[in-house]
Amino acid sequence: MKLLSMKSEGGARAGIVIGEDVLDVTGFCKILEEKGEQASSPHPPLEGVYHDALDLYLYGMERLKPLVSQLENDPQLAGELKASGALRPLASVELNPPVIAPGKILAVGLNYAAHAAEQNIQPPASPLIFSKCTTALTGPGDPIILPRISDRVDYEAELAVVIGREAKSVSRERAFDYVAGYTIMNDVTARDLQRNERQWTRAKGLDTFAPCGPWLVTVDELEDRHSLSVQLWVNGELRQSSDTDDLIFKIPEVIEFISQDLTLRPGDIITTGTPSGVGVFLEPPVFLKAGDRIEIEIGQIGRLANTVVAQGE
Amino acid sequence: MKLLSMKSEGGARAGIVIGEDVLDVTGFCKILEEKGEQASSPHPPLEGVYHDALDLYLYGMERLKPLVSQLENDPQLAGELKASGALRPLASVELNPPVIAPGKILAVGLNYAAHAAEQNIQPPASPLIFSKCTTALTGPGDPIILPRISDRVDYEAELAVVIGREAKSVSRERAFDYVAGYTIMNDVTARDLQRNERQWTRAKGLDTFAPCGPWLVTVDELEDRHSLSVQLWVNGELRQSSDTDDLIFKIPEVIEFISQDLTLRPGDIITTGTPSGVGVFLEPPVFLKAGDRIEIEIGQIGRLANTVVAQGE
Repeated sequence: MKLLSMKSEGGARAGIVIGEDVLDVTGFCKILEEKGEQASSPHPPLEGVYHDALDLYLYGMERLKPLVSQLENDPQLAGELKASGALRPLASVELNPPVIAPGKILAVGLNYAAHAAEQNIQPPASPLIFSKCTTALTGPGDPIILPRISDRVDYEAELAVVIGREAKSVSRERAFDYVAGYTIMNDVTARDLQRNERQWTRAKGLDTFAPCGPWLVTVDELEDRHSLSVQLWVNGELRQSSDTDDLIFKIPEVIEFISQDLTLRPGDIITTGTPSGVGVFLEPPVFLKAGDRIEIEIGQIGRLANTVVAQGE
Repeated sequence: MKLLSMKSEGGARAGIVIGEDVLDVTGFCKILEEKGEQASSPHPPLEGVYHDALDLYLYGMERLKPLVSQLENDPQLAGELKASGALRPLASVELNPPVIAPGKILAVGLNYAAHAAEQNIQPPASPLIFSKCTTALTGPGDPIILPRISDRVDYEAELAVVIGREAKSVSRERAFDYVAGYTIMNDVTARDLQRNERQWTRAKGLDTFAPCGPWLVTVDELEDRHSLSVQLWVNGELRQSSDTDDLIFKIPEVIEFISQDLTLRPGDIITTGTPSGVGVFLEPPVFLKAGDRIEIEIGQIGRLANTVVAQGE
C-alpha cells in the first residue's frame, strides 16, 4: 500500500493511494460510522484522527487492507466517498512528508561506490552514519529554501527506509521485520558548511534540507529493494542515475550496524546514501539556485519534486 | 521554579519542586477540581495530564506561580495534598529527564578553552555543532549502560539550555527570550567511536548516552547563567571543576549561531560543552566501568547522578 499524509485545514490527515485517487482515512471512517457499518465490519473500527503514514502503519496493515478492498468492490460506496470528498484525485491534494514527526533521521554517507570514486575517496569499511535534524523535513512540492549562510547548496537523491517497530541489536537476517516501508529523501547539503565544519549537523540539517515523500510504500509491496532505479533531474536535466544494487552497505547491513546499542523507533528514518552525479563534483561545480526544479524518481516508489526558492519568497 | 517529570504507574507526570517536596501537578488539579476551587481561582484551570517540564512551561509560568503560592500560604491544603500523595518528598520519587521527548538535542564541542587545550587543539573560530540522538536520553538515577561496541566510554559534564519558543534567526540580544530554562546533561561519549568515525552521531548517540536532569530551572530563577560552577565526580573523586564563565561561546552567541537557517522548537535542548578533566585526557586515560557512580553538580541548578552498568544488568 501507499500511505501518505496530506495537508488539510484541520491539520495533517492520513491517506491511502487508490489508483489515481487518495482516500482520506479519517473522512472514510466518519462516513462508515454514519452508515453504522463499523459494527458489522470484520475489521476493528478505526478511531480518532490519523495524521500520517506511520499512524496508519501502526494501526495495522491487516486492518487497512479490508478497507481498501471494500472500496474497490463497492462502486456505490466509492461514489459516495467521492461526493463527500473523502476520496479525491491525488493531483488535487498537497502532501506532507509521509511521517510528519519522526524521532530521528539517520543517514549513510558514501554508500555508492561511484559516489565515493567521484570524490577520490576510498569507500568506508563500515557505514558512515550521520544525522539530519527533524526540523529539516519538508513535503513533496514544498520549497527548498536557500539558506542565508550557504551559497553552495546541493541535492542528493536517496532511498529512505522508515522503521516500523522498535529495533535494537537486530541481525541483518531479521532486519526487514523492522521496516515499515520505503520513501524518497533528498539529502540536501550545504557543501561549504560540510567542508568547513567538522560535523555535518548544520550542513545537512538546515530548514527544508530534508524533502521527503511522496508516500510510504509498505514493505509488502516492495519485495526487491535492491534493484530500484534512482534518478534525479534538475530542470529536466538528468544528473543522477543509478540503482540500489550499487549500494555498498545494503539495507539489512545498515539496520544491523546502526541498531547496535542504538535503538530505532517506529517512524525513525534511515536514508541510505546517494549515487554519483551531485552538483559539487560536476566540472565546473553547479549549485542550486532559486527557481531550480528538482525531481527524484525511485522505481516502484514514485517521484518527489521540489522547487528551490530564495529566502523570503 | 524547578519543573520536572517523574515516573508513575500511569506514565510520566509533571511536577514542581516546593522545598524538599514535589507537587504532582495533575494530582493537584484533580483535588482542586474535587474541591470545586478552580472556578473561583484567579488563574485559568489546568486541564488534562501534564507529563514533563515542557508541558508546564508551555502552560505558562504566570499561571503556575499562583498555584505554588496558594500551596505555600495554605498549610491545610498542603496537608491535604500530602495525605493524598499529590505532594510528596522529592527523595521518594524517581525522575525522568525534565523534557521527555525533545525534537532534537544539539551540542557544542570544544567550548571551554581548557578542554581544547588538554587536547592540544586550537579553540574553534565558530561553535562546533553536533547532535545527540534523542533516544540516548535517560533520567536522573537511571543507569548509563556500557555499550557492546565500545570500551572507552567517557563522561562530559555540561550546562544544558532548553528552548521555550520557536527560534529562527534570533539575535544574541534577544536570545534569552527563547530560553525556557536550564538543566544538566552528561554528554556521554564513546571515545573509540569518536576517534574512528568521521561523524560523532554514534559516538555521542548510543542509548543512555544523554543523562539529563534533575529538573528544569526556569529562566526567571537564574539571572546570571555565566557564573555557575560545573563539577563532576566519579566515585566521589573530583574530575571536572570549572565555571560557565569559561565558556568560549556564551549561550546567546550559541543560540544566534545555531538559529541561523535552523529552527529551534520548544523542548529542543542545546548542551553547551564540557570543561577540562574528561577521562580520555587523564594520564593514563581512565574510562567508565560498571559500578562507577557519576555525579554532576551545577551551581543554582542541582545535581545529576547516574551509575554505570554493564549490558544486561
